[in-house]
Amino acid sequence: MNVQQVIDAILKDSCGDFRLSETGDRIMSGSPDTEVTGIVTTFMATVDVIKQAIACGANMIITHEPTYYTGKDETDWLQDDPVYAAKKKLIDENQIVIWRFHDYMHMGKTDRIYDGLLKEIGWENHMLDGNPHTYQIEEVSLAELASFFKRKLSMDVVQIIGKPEMKCSRVGILVGGGSLGLGREQMPMELMRNMNLDVMVCGEIMEWTLCAYINDAQMLGLNKAMIVVGHERSEEWGMKFMAEWLQPLVHGIPVVFIDAREPFTYL
Amino acid sequence: MNVQQVIDAILKDSCGDFRLSETGDRIMSGSPDTEVTGIVTTFMATVDVIKQAIACGANMIITHEPTYYTGKDETDWLQDDPVYAAKKKLIDENQIVIWRFHDYMHMGKTDRIYDGLLKEIGWENHMLDGNPHTYQIEEVSLAELASFFKRKLSMDVVQIIGKPEMKCSRVGILVGGGSLGLGREQMPMELMRNMNLDVMVCGEIMEWTLCAYINDAQMLGLNKAMIVVGHERSEEWGMKFMAEWLQPLVHGIPVVFIDAREPFTYL
Repeated sequence: MNVQQVIDAILKDSCGDFRLSETGDRIMSGSPDTEVTGIVTTFMATVDVIKQAIACGANMIITHEPTYYTGKDETDWLQDDPVYAAKKKLIDENQIVIWRFHDYMHMGKTDRIYDGLLKEIGWENHMLDGNPHTYQIEEVSLAELASFFKRKLSMDVVQIIGKPEMKCSRVGILVGGGSLGLGREQMPMELMRNMNLDVMVCGEIMEWTLCAYINDAQMLGLNKAMIVVGHERSEEWGMKFMAEWLQPLVHGIPVVFIDAREPFTYL
Repeated sequence: MNVQQVIDAILKDSCGDFRLSETGDRIMSGSPDTEVTGIVTTFMATVDVIKQAIACGANMIITHEPTYYTGKDETDWLQDDPVYAAKKKLIDENQIVIWRFHDYMHMGKTDRIYDGLLKEIGWENHMLDGNPHTYQIEEVSLAELASFFKRKLSMDVVQIIGKPEMKCSRVGILVGGGSLGLGREQMPMELMRNMNLDVMVCGEIMEWTLCAYINDAQMLGLNKAMIVVGHERSEEWGMKFMAEWLQPLVHGIPVVFIDAREPFTYL
């Protein structure tokens, strides 16, 4: 199969015949008619992921997030940039095709990023009203819930807002950039209020929106808290899960998931 | 002096006769003709800050960031919200005036948020080309620089990207939301490249922009790193400094700085 055939198989499996008129899901390097020798799925095609892909003989990387540091993956501003030049050289010399699979991944029959996260944490049966943003779990303390996410998502440290002993049973999850509100800052707070959630587990955050709301709420004695796991740690699992469902679609081509890993160290 | 007279004195001292045609710097509660008994300056008028202001007899809070959880401090979406209702009750029952001082604070003859931070960390003489976003310091390791910021900004934990032993002498600082690029995602990366900075100290971050750029750069062996101190920890010091310069402008009215404190705990 060539690159375009792999892409077509993925889109058909995820979204049937639905196609967007505008999308950032495009080939960022290489050609659609390249014969695929092996596929890597990952949250982000970082330099280390690219090196690991080369080492295992794969020539197609499917990345959820941008390759070149802006939402639209524009490269005009990078023409004299040493980071861009070195990364592009690595990609070109090894003839690696990079395809972004973001919008269609979230807009499939189910949101396949959430599907992967739920598989990883085992919460498939805790969903409220079929909404992957809301869950009912057996009551635990905030500290216990934070430990659960640290263990399941392989994190050394998480940021929380709220009292560690607070009881949590109604849990919201907004992965990736979704916790910023998808164009409406109020959205995560409205969700928390309307669904009477105790705690929100977040990808990206801004301190003047949901953080400030939850901080005030807990200062007022209301049962509200936040756990910040970050963008990569909340979405990586969708790309891990993808390696499983993609394998049968591409017949004998090897498919491997490579963990892009959390970019942060905590000092 | 009444509230409006205090505001006028602050704006004149910061910006002379310059006024914006549109700004979020407005009175969020109370009336401009209220006689001021005491002033609190703070990064954010959280519930705890309001309670402390009441306890010390102040009836005017000057906050850098929003009171009600969105950039524009809109309240229409909050009419049935229990967090909003309880916070508003606390404010109204105690007749607290809240005024936001954000845009003019950054747009003064100097950016008075940076002025305060520099005073706190003692870097007034390290500035490059009179640009408060860039500094030249005596060479230290990334771990040492992270420790310096933890100590100076009273933090238990900071997030970093890069090798702890990396040498840093050219340092960028983008406080608050500035590290998101102020409408242009590329900005912090262009600054880093154009000024040949080793490390960027950040307020807010998003994982797909500057974080990803720095992560790739350090994976390529380039001398690049990031220290994330967050929005509140990077900007609070401007409001601390404000209590000093505001006092002589309001004659006998007591002016107190109250630290809104970092919202996060690290588990």
